[in-house]
Amino acid sequence: MLTFEHTTLGQRVLFGSGKAAENLAAETARLGAKRVMVIASEFEAEIARKVTAGIEAALWHDEVVMHVPLEVAERARTAATENGIDLIVCVGGGSTTGLAKAVAMTTGIPIVAVPTTYAGSEATNVWGLTEAARKTTGVDDKVLPVTVIYDAELTLSLPVEMSVASGLNGMAHCVDSLWGPRVDPINAALAAEGIRALAAGLPAIKADPSGLKGREQALYGAYLAAVSFASAGSGMHHKICHVLGGTFNLPHAQTHATVLPYVLAFNAPCVPEAEARMAAAFGASTALEGLQELRTRLDAPKALADYGFTAAGIAEAVEVALPVIPGNNPRPVTAENLTALLDAALTGADPATLTDQALLEGAAR
Amino acid sequence: MLTFEHTTLGQRVLFGSGKAAENLAAETARLGAKRVMVIASEFEAEIARKVTAGIEAALWHDEVVMHVPLEVAERARTAATENGIDLIVCVGGGSTTGLAKAVAMTTGIPIVAVPTTYAGSEATNVWGLTEAARKTTGVDDKVLPVTVIYDAELTLSLPVEMSVASGLNGMAHCVDSLWGPRVDPINAALAAEGIRALAAGLPAIKADPSGLKGREQALYGAYLAAVSFASAGSGMHHKICHVLGGTFNLPHAQTHATVLPYVLAFNAPCVPEAEARMAAAFGASTALEGLQELRTRLDAPKALADYGFTAAGIAEAVEVALPVIPGNNPRPVTAENLTALLDAALTGADPATLTDQALLEGAAR
Repeated sequence: MLTFEHTTLGQRVLFGSGKAAENLAAETARLGAKRVMVIASEFEAEIARKVTAGIEAALWHDEVVMHVPLEVAERARTAATENGIDLIVCVGGGSTTGLAKAVAMTTGIPIVAVPTTYAGSEATNVWGLTEAARKTTGVDDKVLPVTVIYDAELTLSLPVEMSVASGLNGMAHCVDSLWGPRVDPINAALAAEGIRALAAGLPAIKADPSGLKGREQALYGAYLAAVSFASAGSGMHHKICHVLGGTFNLPHAQTHATVLPYVLAFNAPCVPEAEARMAAAFGASTALEGLQELRTRLDAPKALADYGFTAAGIAEAVEVALPVIPGNNPRPVTAENLTALLDAALTGADPATLTDQALLEGAAR
Repeated sequence: MLTFEHTTLGQRVLFGSGKAAENLAAETARLGAKRVMVIASEFEAEIARKVTAGIEAALWHDEVVMHVPLEVAERARTAATENGIDLIVCVGGGSTTGLAKAVAMTTGIPIVAVPTTYAGSEATNVWGLTEAARKTTGVDDKVLPVTVIYDAELTLSLPVEMSVASGLNGMAHCVDSLWGPRVDPINAALAAEGIRALAAGLPAIKADPSGLKGREQALYGAYLAAVSFASAGSGMHHKICHVLGGTFNLPHAQTHATVLPYVLAFNAPCVPEAEARMAAAFGASTALEGLQELRTRLDAPKALADYGFTAAGIAEAVEVALPVIPGNNPRPVTAENLTALLDAALTGADPATLTDQALLEGAAR
C-alpha cells in the first residue's frame, strides 16, 4: 500500500554561475521591494557587496553569530522594524540564513537567500534560536525564503576539504532521507537526484577546485539534500551522529562521513527499492559500493578511532542512541547490532560485514 | 553550465487508499473551514457523498461542464460568494477541478481537491475558461489547490481501457517534460519518477483491474506527470498532438499514445542524460525499448492511420506544427524530418528508424 503525506514547500530557485547579482536585481524588482536589509557577516562582506551591486540596500546588518543567539536575533529584528524593511537579502552560510529566518519569524518580512555554502538552511522552513546556551528549533512557513539564488562562483572560495566534508554531509542527508520517519516516494526521488549530483560534483571539485562544473553539481545536490531531509526527517544515521557529537564531542563532518557507510550497509538489505534507487544514483551495482568508491576518491575519513572515539564509549553511545532511533527504521535496531555497527565504525572495518549479517538474518527468518 | 529557474508550487498531498473521507475531515478541520462548498458533477455525486461523509457541506454544486464555460463559472462564483463559502472541496476529474479553480481565481477561496481520474489539474496553478467557444488559459497561484487528497479506491470505477489511455497521456507528460521549454533537472527527476510509477502501475491495472497496487502507482505517477509537465511546459510531442487533434480532429488519447514513441526515438539520441534517466525509470536498456515494451503489454494504439489520419494530411500537419515546436528542442526539427516522423507514425513503422537517422546525422556532423 502506498500511503504518505507530503508537504511540498513553495519556493523559487534561480540557479546560475556568475548570475547572482543579475538574478538578485531581477528578483528584488519582481517582488517590488523598496527597502532591502542585507544580512551578511563581516567575512562575507566582500561577496555580499558584489552580489548586491545591482540593488539599493536600505540597511546592512553584519552581526551574524553561530546558532543565532536570541539577543542577536532581537537586535536584527529591531533594526528591520525601525528601518521599515520590506525584504531581507541574506548572503552567506547557515548562520546568516538562520539570522534572516529569525527576523522573518517575528516580522513576516520575506527573505531572498543567496547561499555561499552547502548548509541547505535556505531550502527549509526550520528556524533555530539559542537562549541561555539552549538551542530551540521549530517549523514556520514564514521563515522559508521565497526565493533562493544559487551561484556556484560564490562557493569557489570554499576550500576543497571543506567542500568535500560539507558535500558528504549533504550525502548523509540524502541517504538518511530514504528511511527517515516521514520518508515518502517524492522525497526519495529528490534524495536520489541529490545523491547523483553530489556523487558527480564532489570528485570533480577535488580534481579541479577552481572549476565550476563540480561546484554546480555539488551546490545543486546540497539543495536537494536539504529539501528531502527536511521532508523526511532525521533517520538512524543522524541520530547516531548526534549522540557521537553531543555526548562524545566528535567532530561533525568527520563523524558523518565515517558513520554513513555503516548505516547504509546496515539498512540497505531491508529496503531493496531504496537500495536500487541509490545504486542507480551512484551509477554503481550496489549503493554501498557506490558510496565506498566515492569515499575512496575523496579520501574520506575511515574510522571513528581517528577522531578520539574509543571502545570504552560504545556502551554509552548505544544506550543514548538506541531509544532515539526512529521506530520505522527498516531494520530493527538492538543494543547488540548497534554495538556491532559502532565496533565496525570505530576501527574502520569493512561495512559489508554488517550487510552480510543482515542478509543472513533476513534469510533465517 | 547548470542554469535554470524552477518554481516549486507549495502544496500538501495526502495519499492513501480508502482514506479520502478520513483525510478530508482532518484537512477541513486543520484549515479551520466552517462553510464548505462541495463541487462534484451528477456522475460523481455518489463518490462525493462517500468522500464528504465526515464533513458538513454548506453548499453542493453539481453544474460541471467540460472546458468550464464562463457562464457556468460565474454561477458557481456567485453561489460561493452568496453562501459565505470559506473552502471549496472538489471531487472528480479535470472539469470538476477546473470549475473549482475558476471560483478560486476570482474569490480567493482555497481548494481541497479529491481527484478521481489521472487528469492532473489538481497539481497545477493553471486555469482554463471557455467563452464564445474560445478557451483561454492562464496561470494564477490562487487556483492551486492547497491540498490534494489521493485515494486509489476512487479510481476503481475507471475502466481499464480509460485508465491505460489516461495513464499513457500522463506518460507523455513525463517524457515531453524532459525537453520542454522550461526543462530543468528538478522536473526531470520528478518526471523520471513519474515514468517509473506509470510503467509499474499501468500493466498492473491491466492484469488486475480491481486491485489497488497498480491504481496507486498510476495515480501517483499521474500526479508527478502533472507537476513536471506544468513546470517544464509543452514540448515537441504535445505541439504535434495538439495539431493532430485541433486541425485533424484525431482522438486525444490515441493520438498521444501513438505519437509518443516516434518523438522519443526522434529526440533521444540528442539528450543522452535524459535518455539514460528514462531508460533507468523504465528499467530497460534504452528509453525507447522501455516505452515500446510497455506499449506492447498495454496493447497501445500503433498507427495514426487507424484513427482517420491519412498521408494527404501530413504536409498540412507539418506546416502547422513546425513553427510551434519549441526552439530548445534537443534535435533541430525541419519540414523534412518532421514529415518522416509523421510518415512513420501514420503507418506504425518502427520508431527506431527515426533514432538511427538521428544517430547517423549526429555522427556525420
